[in-house]
Amino acid sequence: MVRYFIELAYNGSKFHGWQIQPDAPTVQEELNCALSTLLRENIQVVGAGRTDTGVHAAYYVAHFDTSILIPDPSQVAYKLNRLTGNDIAINKIYPVAEDDHARFSALSRTYKYFIDKQKNPFTCTFAWKVYPLPDINLMNEACNQLFRYTDFTSFSKLHTDVTNNNCTIYQAFWEDTGQQLVFTIEANRFLRNMVRAIVGTMLQIGQNKLSLEGFCKIIESKNRCNAGTSVPGHALFLWDIKYPEKIVNRK
Amino acid sequence: MVRYFIELAYNGSKFHGWQIQPDAPTVQEELNCALSTLLRENIQVVGAGRTDTGVHAAYYVAHFDTSILIPDPSQVAYKLNRLTGNDIAINKIYPVAEDDHARFSALSRTYKYFIDKQKNPFTCTFAWKVYPLPDINLMNEACNQLFRYTDFTSFSKLHTDVTNNNCTIYQAFWEDTGQQLVFTIEANRFLRNMVRAIVGTMLQIGQNKLSLEGFCKIIESKNRCNAGTSVPGHALFLWDIKYPEKIVNRK
Repeated sequence: MVRYFIELAYNGSKFHGWQIQPDAPTVQEELNCALSTLLRENIQVVGAGRTDTGVHAAYYVAHFDTSILIPDPSQVAYKLNRLTGNDIAINKIYPVAEDDHARFSALSRTYKYFIDKQKNPFTCTFAWKVYPLPDINLMNEACNQLFRYTDFTSFSKLHTDVTNNNCTIYQAFWEDTGQQLVFTIEANRFLRNMVRAIVGTMLQIGQNKLSLEGFCKIIESKNRCNAGTSVPGHALFLWDIKYPEKIVNRK
Repeated sequence: MVRYFIELAYNGSKFHGWQIQPDAPTVQEELNCALSTLLRENIQVVGAGRTDTGVHAAYYVAHFDTSILIPDPSQVAYKLNRLTGNDIAINKIYPVAEDDHARFSALSRTYKYFIDKQKNPFTCTFAWKVYPLPDINLMNEACNQLFRYTDFTSFSKLHTDVTNNNCTIYQAFWEDTGQQLVFTIEANRFLRNMVRAIVGTMLQIGQNKLSLEGFCKIIESKNRCNAGTSVPGHALFLWDIKYPEKIVNRK
């Protein structure tokens, strides 16, 4: 058996997230079907992590094991792009070591959240329009507070199966690109719903409905009920996943 | 009666073009309805020109006459954005002289056509994927030939009601933006279907199926049957419309 990494991007609008589930279209299922058809072997891809319904991935990594010899992975990528619909694009396939793992080998994930400053008929399926527009400086002050904490229970969905709620935040900032406000956050791991709950709570700060002190108290309370409402998933993108050099060098 | 210019943008995916027609959604109809509801008067907007089914406008101008006093046009724009769906955005409304005309006062129109170089799940509703990828240098040589001509009958839809097929091309070029090939063309006027027929014919040149000499002969033949197939409308944007200084200064 040889293990392959597969780099892809997907428009999550029509999917019920990454992870396979009965009676609903998911990216994992479409990829399993296309790879199994192409390689004529039952292929089960393992993803770098879940994404929620409607959330997009500008960059996503999965791995799969196969006994089928693949002399030219770029040909498999090309054919896979013809088997999958418009909403999934396969960008690269390459062999890795048998213990390299799309999820467990990942060093960090980066998400971006997009806010349209004005009504925009071309970006509205990938961004959320917020009114009144939040103060980006206030939200960036909140970003700086995030680095003081590791337990983000307050921004996690209740009743998930993780053993602890500790995350190390590497980057978190808002920028104004002219047409949009964009939030970028990188961490070693994310809890379920975490980015959308953080953005929802930060918007309250940016709209003067919550103080910085209140923001810190919410985190310290370790109680999801205290945080702001989650923002919609259609404006959230999994943007990047970092792997160790030894995997990157395999590309 | 006071005449107003209204600047807007629209995602053409769900519209049967700009111009009102029975039993099909059009931008003109949605705008007429919203303005009439808001101003409580029967308003008929006049557009800068037609766009075909599925074609988008990043910038569009229409005018309307009203006897209703509008003390703050930006408030009308704001309310209009709430009355119209996600696919139309009103960007500005301002009073003009009574003989300023959205269509007849326009000095030039600019269109852009977008080609995705790779499968892309985020841009595929606004760009066309072409395979094999055309040679952009060959297509730019074809652009230079366009300036030699004014009669573009060969790139016009048959049986339209215009009295002549003369257009003056001001700009025409292809550029490679990294992810996409983008065609920009500016002219005083465009014939129906003209940009899509020009792009379709240029792609034949870029894919070595047609020579530059053959391209010129097609134009000189003044026969639509000789030109290449029209490319799909979903990748075409009306991008800009230029008006005389006296109108621009009214903004």
